[in-house]
Amino acid sequence: MAKPLTVADRAKVPPFQVMDILARVGELRAAGRDVVSLCAGEPSGGAPSGVSAAAARLHAARSPLTYTPALGTAELRAAIAGHYRRWYGIEVPAANVAVTGGASGAFVLLFLSAFNPGDRVALARPGYPAYRNILRALGIEAVEIDCGPATRYQPTPDLLDAAEREHGPLSGLVLASPANPTGTMVTRTELSALADWCAEHGARLVSDEIYHGITYPEPGAADPAGVCAWELDRNTVVVSSFSKYWGMTGWRLGWALVPDDLLAAVDALAGNVALCPPAPAQFAATEAFSEQSYAEAEQAVAGFADARVALLDALPRLGWGDAAPADGAFYLYADLGPALEGFADSTVYCAALLESAGVALVPGADFDAAGGRRTVRLSLAAGRAAVEEAVERIVRFQAARRG
Amino acid sequence: MAKPLTVADRAKVPPFQVMDILARVGELRAAGRDVVSLCAGEPSGGAPSGVSAAAARLHAARSPLTYTPALGTAELRAAIAGHYRRWYGIEVPAANVAVTGGASGAFVLLFLSAFNPGDRVALARPGYPAYRNILRALGIEAVEIDCGPATRYQPTPDLLDAAEREHGPLSGLVLASPANPTGTMVTRTELSALADWCAEHGARLVSDEIYHGITYPEPGAADPAGVCAWELDRNTVVVSSFSKYWGMTGWRLGWALVPDDLLAAVDALAGNVALCPPAPAQFAATEAFSEQSYAEAEQAVAGFADARVALLDALPRLGWGDAAPADGAFYLYADLGPALEGFADSTVYCAALLESAGVALVPGADFDAAGGRRTVRLSLAAGRAAVEEAVERIVRFQAARRG
Repeated sequence: MAKPLTVADRAKVPPFQVMDILARVGELRAAGRDVVSLCAGEPSGGAPSGVSAAAARLHAARSPLTYTPALGTAELRAAIAGHYRRWYGIEVPAANVAVTGGASGAFVLLFLSAFNPGDRVALARPGYPAYRNILRALGIEAVEIDCGPATRYQPTPDLLDAAEREHGPLSGLVLASPANPTGTMVTRTELSALADWCAEHGARLVSDEIYHGITYPEPGAADPAGVCAWELDRNTVVVSSFSKYWGMTGWRLGWALVPDDLLAAVDALAGNVALCPPAPAQFAATEAFSEQSYAEAEQAVAGFADARVALLDALPRLGWGDAAPADGAFYLYADLGPALEGFADSTVYCAALLESAGVALVPGADFDAAGGRRTVRLSLAAGRAAVEEAVERIVRFQAARRG
Repeated sequence: MAKPLTVADRAKVPPFQVMDILARVGELRAAGRDVVSLCAGEPSGGAPSGVSAAAARLHAARSPLTYTPALGTAELRAAIAGHYRRWYGIEVPAANVAVTGGASGAFVLLFLSAFNPGDRVALARPGYPAYRNILRALGIEAVEIDCGPATRYQPTPDLLDAAEREHGPLSGLVLASPANPTGTMVTRTELSALADWCAEHGARLVSDEIYHGITYPEPGAADPAGVCAWELDRNTVVVSSFSKYWGMTGWRLGWALVPDDLLAAVDALAGNVALCPPAPAQFAATEAFSEQSYAEAEQAVAGFADARVALLDALPRLGWGDAAPADGAFYLYADLGPALEGFADSTVYCAALLESAGVALVPGADFDAAGGRRTVRLSLAAGRAAVEEAVERIVRFQAARRG
């Protein structure tokens, strides 16, 4: 009965290798093995205490928790607008804030609203695979731009020009800063140049700012949390979330800053594709913007920073190749360099490392089908102790292979 | 900078009139007016107490609530499978249960997995507008089938044959039983005939069973909760949710029963478009299947049944035209008949009724752009007292107009 060709077939959504690895980690742990996992793309500390307490109160009181407006409660939209005042010093009208089911929900909604099937949208490779996979599922062409150390793994106007020459006009650019998996960030000047390029070329800039605030600036540095695209151009789309900085991944609550010309479409589509974002999370999340919640989030970031120092200090001992400068997020993306010798690719290396040494890393192929064969992503979210233990095990694993 | 034509423009998603009405209800109430609203498509009683208590405990304990598997936790998928054993006496493998962000999330995921852009998918008119709007947003042609009293507002094999003759081959059929807005249900024989028609015509049947259990059967009637499409054919897609029977609309938690041939695509797409369903809701929702929770849900259904009797008893006093047989759900869909005299359409009638008499109904145009000009939808979810008060006000409003 099934049709021979479906959207999913056409999109050929590749399974994430990280899912197989996480499953294997579960099996090994169930069998009593002591496994150090640096796979997780999420903090483990949970929501700020005030958010959890608000949610507990709301459920204890048996609030009915019926549908909210499709773009979120007025209170939460205003509170998110306040966050832009606090971090970036800009006034964002609450009417331009669309609360969504995680950043994922924002991408689906905004890609549907801003792009047509057949449009070309550029994104960096290596990059977060869901951008590409959502675009393709919606019939939008994902134009992957190879970004390497020369541009700190980020696109540039020159690279976009080259992409247009090769593929044809671009309708959009998805930018992530800090990026997953590389952690690299664009400066204000670089973001401005990209926004200008998009404005001149009729392309919509979609700025994924989900890792803002998880950054490791020098004291007194400009733009410590990251530069928001709306500081520069309100025709851009900004996507963010409570998942990372506030540690609320499972709550599925994110948002977008929506340009005026897309607002009506986003509003009409949101009610149809999602009805509304999760109501309990919305009511509780207003507490994410209390002084106490910001302080707790900063505490979590300090933990990532500590793990990051430990990892960067230990890198020379691993004898790997180049690593991307981990400006932000909680990842390190590195070429295995000489350590790859004797392995077909980093997927094989990661499998062997997991089985022999009980250390789980994500192979780069999830983020870059081509260049990712040499790379791995390490997550700092597990904290300093896990990172240090992983380093010791990797050093022993590699020495044993050589010996 | 904006592209001249976007997906949303093409889809021409019409705004729901009910949103304007709800906004006006809010304004009137804020101004001190006593408004009876029969608009809501949701129960107001909230989740079963055991579900709320579980959620409260989970948040009080500050569970980290990180990502779950994309298709939901193993526990919840197994519990949902158990629900099919209880209600329908069928064994559903937990592996075929996909937990989603509400039924809305299931529709997006399954339409993306099962259909291609350009495919034709049939659905009943009048019907729930989001089916049509999601399909169109994904570039799938929504073939609306005019369904009237002769077929109890439901499609039939004959109507599907006629639709194929007029529009070309159909790739799918979205069926809702009980339906929104009409409340009508198909029998086992009728559902079987529709499933057979789909199987013979290479069309995928998508059975929306979100209102199952909210039904008003005679004692001892067969299939009291509704007939599940998976009792008949496991190539069909079943969509359901915790929203209606368990009163958990705002939690955004639903599910689909996914045929084997779509499982891989649904799994791969789910992680990309949604990451996972809301984790707090998933953990708490396993409590929805306790004896106590079923008993509380049945209590809510008894309240709808009571309001339904009150409304059906009062209908002759309203002097309206035909009403659809309200077999299930918590709606009555009726032609205004002679009461429409002097009004351009039911939208104008509803606006006047709200302003003069303080009663909010949903005009039929939200569900049927053509025939809905004569009809209204009343919701029983507000309970007997609200229904009785609304009837008195409508009678006085209409008498004053005539007088």
